[in-house]
Amino acid sequence: MPEFYYKLTIAYDGTNYYGWQVQPNGLSIQEVIQNTMKIILRHPTKIVGSGRTDTGVHALGQVAHFHSPIAIDLHRFISSTNGLLPPDIRLLKIEEVDATFHARYSAIGKTYHYHLWTAPVIFPFQRLYHWHCRDRLDIPLLQKAAVCFIGTHDFKAFANSSHEGTASYDSVRTLSRLDVIEQQGGFRLEFEGNGFLYKMVRNIVGTLVEVARGKMSIEKIPAIIESQDRKKAASAAPALGLFLIEVRYPSL
Amino acid sequence: MPEFYYKLTIAYDGTNYYGWQVQPNGLSIQEVIQNTMKIILRHPTKIVGSGRTDTGVHALGQVAHFHSPIAIDLHRFISSTNGLLPPDIRLLKIEEVDATFHARYSAIGKTYHYHLWTAPVIFPFQRLYHWHCRDRLDIPLLQKAAVCFIGTHDFKAFANSSHEGTASYDSVRTLSRLDVIEQQGGFRLEFEGNGFLYKMVRNIVGTLVEVARGKMSIEKIPAIIESQDRKKAASAAPALGLFLIEVRYPSL
Repeated sequence: MPEFYYKLTIAYDGTNYYGWQVQPNGLSIQEVIQNTMKIILRHPTKIVGSGRTDTGVHALGQVAHFHSPIAIDLHRFISSTNGLLPPDIRLLKIEEVDATFHARYSAIGKTYHYHLWTAPVIFPFQRLYHWHCRDRLDIPLLQKAAVCFIGTHDFKAFANSSHEGTASYDSVRTLSRLDVIEQQGGFRLEFEGNGFLYKMVRNIVGTLVEVARGKMSIEKIPAIIESQDRKKAASAAPALGLFLIEVRYPSL
Repeated sequence: MPEFYYKLTIAYDGTNYYGWQVQPNGLSIQEVIQNTMKIILRHPTKIVGSGRTDTGVHALGQVAHFHSPIAIDLHRFISSTNGLLPPDIRLLKIEEVDATFHARYSAIGKTYHYHLWTAPVIFPFQRLYHWHCRDRLDIPLLQKAAVCFIGTHDFKAFANSSHEGTASYDSVRTLSRLDVIEQQGGFRLEFEGNGFLYKMVRNIVGTLVEVARGKMSIEKIPAIIESQDRKKAASAAPALGLFLIEVRYPSL
């Protein structure tokens, strides 16, 4: 039987979901999409994401792949699936790919943004998409601290142990860009790298804010990275400020 | 007993409320603020808004006034009231005013924005703040149609009968500006005028979109205005795209 292979690009507001991945405690984004696709395609389909996002984390460009025994009318699929999906999950794009494409293993890079609101009062419309950080932050110092993370490092000190529970794994990643960009109410941090460990972005943000608050010395950062000890870094920044913006693949 | 007079500037996400004004069917924004202020000020306080906003309508600059038998520490009032308010309602500012200030009767003008999303797929983060209009719209035509409304007119054909139920009232208003401004996913309409009748902005938007859809001729607009007949204009645009941006007063 011939099979057809597809790549989905998905945006979602993570506020009301137990993260991306199907799990027993509550409704996940993957589950909602699979349930909807079952109605549209009339057969159960498993979609495989580029990686998990936690409860409350948002996405503008999550990617997933799936295969189907029947060829899909791409344009109709997008509009009919979006018609049934709840409005906080949207399919942005569907593309046909070849059988070797894998949303997770074919990925060569990802971009995350983290939004911080530092003005005293946060607008109601922004409340679900920013960490409202009321402390006075030293932004030039935060910018300097961000530079310490750029490059190829073992980021184990900034990785929570994953639910996948692999005892030993390769935790070396390359962070090619970490920019601090001013925007309404505060700033955002843009992370670009070849891959990210579990909670790595939020743990780095937590540590950067600790430095910018004056609670941790910037000199400690290289030693924390080297220690590979999660307990040395600050606690994770809240989920609601984090957006998975893009997953990159070799040109299809 | 001396009295102290205050002006509040308020932002809210109207999604979860039955509009601004206290009413029996559900929770209003005014009620939530009054209940919170009662806890902070330790006496019941009635706040008077610049005007009502309907269920689902948002505000970035609603204004209200109130008086108090005791002088208020302005800075502490803002932070402690925001600390107790739900995060979809925020006090942006409190100012002392003199006894003659009235949020409604002293107002000399208002600005409303109406957001339309015309791209096929709306981002989840924008879903509560735009009318997602899937039809193809002729924007240059919409811009031409908008010009018909600028100036001083009797806008009765674009006013729903208010709950205040005054049988006859002055429905002449001056719309000094109606701009069409492109933005992510579509465009917004900016309305500036000396005052607005009940549902006037949403009724005008509904009619403009009807013209831009090719369902109504632009030539009919002056006749509809002249008719003073609500039934001749199109139905109102949905509440969720509408924002009360600013209420203007003579320099205090």
